[in-house]
Amino acid sequence: MSISAVSSREFYVGVDVGGSKVAVLVSDDQGREQGRYVAPTRLDSSRGTLEGIVDAIHTALRVAQADLEDVAAIGLGIPGRVEPEEGIVHLAVNLSWQNMPVGQILQEALGTPCWLENDVRAAALGLQRHPLYAQVQNLAYISIGTGISAGLILNGRLYRGAHGMAGEIGHMMMLRDGPRCQCGSRGCLEALASGPAIARRGEAILQTGVKTILSEWKPVTTRSVFQAAEAGDAIAQAILQEVGRYLGQALQQMVMAYDVEHIVLGGGVASAGASLLDYVLTDIKHQREASSLAKEMLQPEMFHMQPQNYEAGLWGAVVLAENGLHTMQPLTI
Amino acid sequence: MSISAVSSREFYVGVDVGGSKVAVLVSDDQGREQGRYVAPTRLDSSRGTLEGIVDAIHTALRVAQADLEDVAAIGLGIPGRVEPEEGIVHLAVNLSWQNMPVGQILQEALGTPCWLENDVRAAALGLQRHPLYAQVQNLAYISIGTGISAGLILNGRLYRGAHGMAGEIGHMMMLRDGPRCQCGSRGCLEALASGPAIARRGEAILQTGVKTILSEWKPVTTRSVFQAAEAGDAIAQAILQEVGRYLGQALQQMVMAYDVEHIVLGGGVASAGASLLDYVLTDIKHQREASSLAKEMLQPEMFHMQPQNYEAGLWGAVVLAENGLHTMQPLTI
Repeated sequence: MSISAVSSREFYVGVDVGGSKVAVLVSDDQGREQGRYVAPTRLDSSRGTLEGIVDAIHTALRVAQADLEDVAAIGLGIPGRVEPEEGIVHLAVNLSWQNMPVGQILQEALGTPCWLENDVRAAALGLQRHPLYAQVQNLAYISIGTGISAGLILNGRLYRGAHGMAGEIGHMMMLRDGPRCQCGSRGCLEALASGPAIARRGEAILQTGVKTILSEWKPVTTRSVFQAAEAGDAIAQAILQEVGRYLGQALQQMVMAYDVEHIVLGGGVASAGASLLDYVLTDIKHQREASSLAKEMLQPEMFHMQPQNYEAGLWGAVVLAENGLHTMQPLTI
Repeated sequence: MSISAVSSREFYVGVDVGGSKVAVLVSDDQGREQGRYVAPTRLDSSRGTLEGIVDAIHTALRVAQADLEDVAAIGLGIPGRVEPEEGIVHLAVNLSWQNMPVGQILQEALGTPCWLENDVRAAALGLQRHPLYAQVQNLAYISIGTGISAGLILNGRLYRGAHGMAGEIGHMMMLRDGPRCQCGSRGCLEALASGPAIARRGEAILQTGVKTILSEWKPVTTRSVFQAAEAGDAIAQAILQEVGRYLGQALQQMVMAYDVEHIVLGGGVASAGASLLDYVLTDIKHQREASSLAKEMLQPEMFHMQPQNYEAGLWGAVVLAENGLHTMQPLTI
């Protein structure tokens, strides 16, 4: 991935822009980390957020003892809907960005090509450079947090779909007449298995007056449901078993339709409860027992938690920086 | 697609092998039809089936006034699980083939490279050369018949998945605790919306003694359910509305997860009842009314019936013949 033969710019910068923090990683042309910096996300204004990102990049470069002139490209993972070719963020609710030409603004501020992608897709790209998945041609990274979405690698490449909307699995309709989703539909996966759905389920069960240690931990959070379940609380366990069933069913559908090789779970809910994978695998086990096809296509080994201590999103942003030069046309600065 | 500059072999042969008939099409190197022949499938023995295919190819070539020596390659769409690179048919239940080296046997018999693919995937390839879909990069062809499966074109190319199992949408689990599927699971799409599922549903309703003109048309078939619905029978209409809902939900899931641009319905059920699309679209309409995301991603124009009088499977077999030379290594004869 070196471009040293044609350029003296030896560094790539990856930026993982979140609703609460901006993480920046500076990598050399051998993919070695040279420095990093994490700052709180500035949320004072949409321009302020951009200035905060620029400042964080400058600071990370100082940490890496590198200069902007040594940076070949910058990649950014953005929590929202992104048009990578135009460098436009159509919608990033947490950042209050709407139809914002982020790529152009950052390129003007930094004088370096800037490549954007949705953060969950960036994380899928990041997994692809992890030793565990380096040879994997078909992979789905599933982010389960406030929302649920997927980053897909198909035939070895990031797959965006016909309109850049691939991976909207949070809105796969799992249960007709199920609970109302924010999108307006009923029974979307997100309304059944996201962080808020888990907490809501816990709150609703408390209202019934049933005996559970969750009643001592009000308000109920996703994390407290996992903690109660780990402490042996049958109600919390039942909530998570149901979540595991919906996730197991959605993953079954994704595998049957598209035969991915690995499914990697990440995001806030997955980090709140590492046992999430166990609940999913319990459902997968039941599916395998019923059907020879399920037994063939749903191998327990194909389901993983995101590798610990590996920042897939941040490294994916580095991949965006590296690949942008080779696979896309840079924006005109 | 001409190889006339490097070879004098100017013809490509496509073969659509079905459980009841074998259709052969001879095309020149400009993609123009030069002759065709259709024969009943020989089902006397697995070898007999192969001999019948060889005979049908010879006859089609005579119709086209062409010689085997003028044939650059032969492509075959097979109703079953196929390993194209090895030319092996792992399982084709209707043909009683199991782990059969069909590619090698036919190449030895014909002296010409032979390329195999699953018939539904071949039909997806065939659609790609239809003027309607020539520019479409992401497409799902859904065959609804005795079983339900999909042929997928993603990023402009046939997508087979990590283990060649992509498109097994008949076994997407739609309804937990739903009717038992042949695969062993409950509530698979195939157990809810295939031809046999529709007929079974009609039979079951007859048992309840409810008033329906289906009772005059015993035994109930998929076609009779469609005919009764078209004649205004409320029971038959209700059955098909339910089928439309399950199909609509499965297609919603496929679109949300993978953002395909077009979904084309074909297969026996689709040809038994052209109104199937209307039932699916009724469900899609309800989904669009509930959710802005569904409204954006589920456009009514993206759902089509297979183009009439266009044999997608047969032309897809021709594409297999053409592409095999360019994209795969021929088997050693």
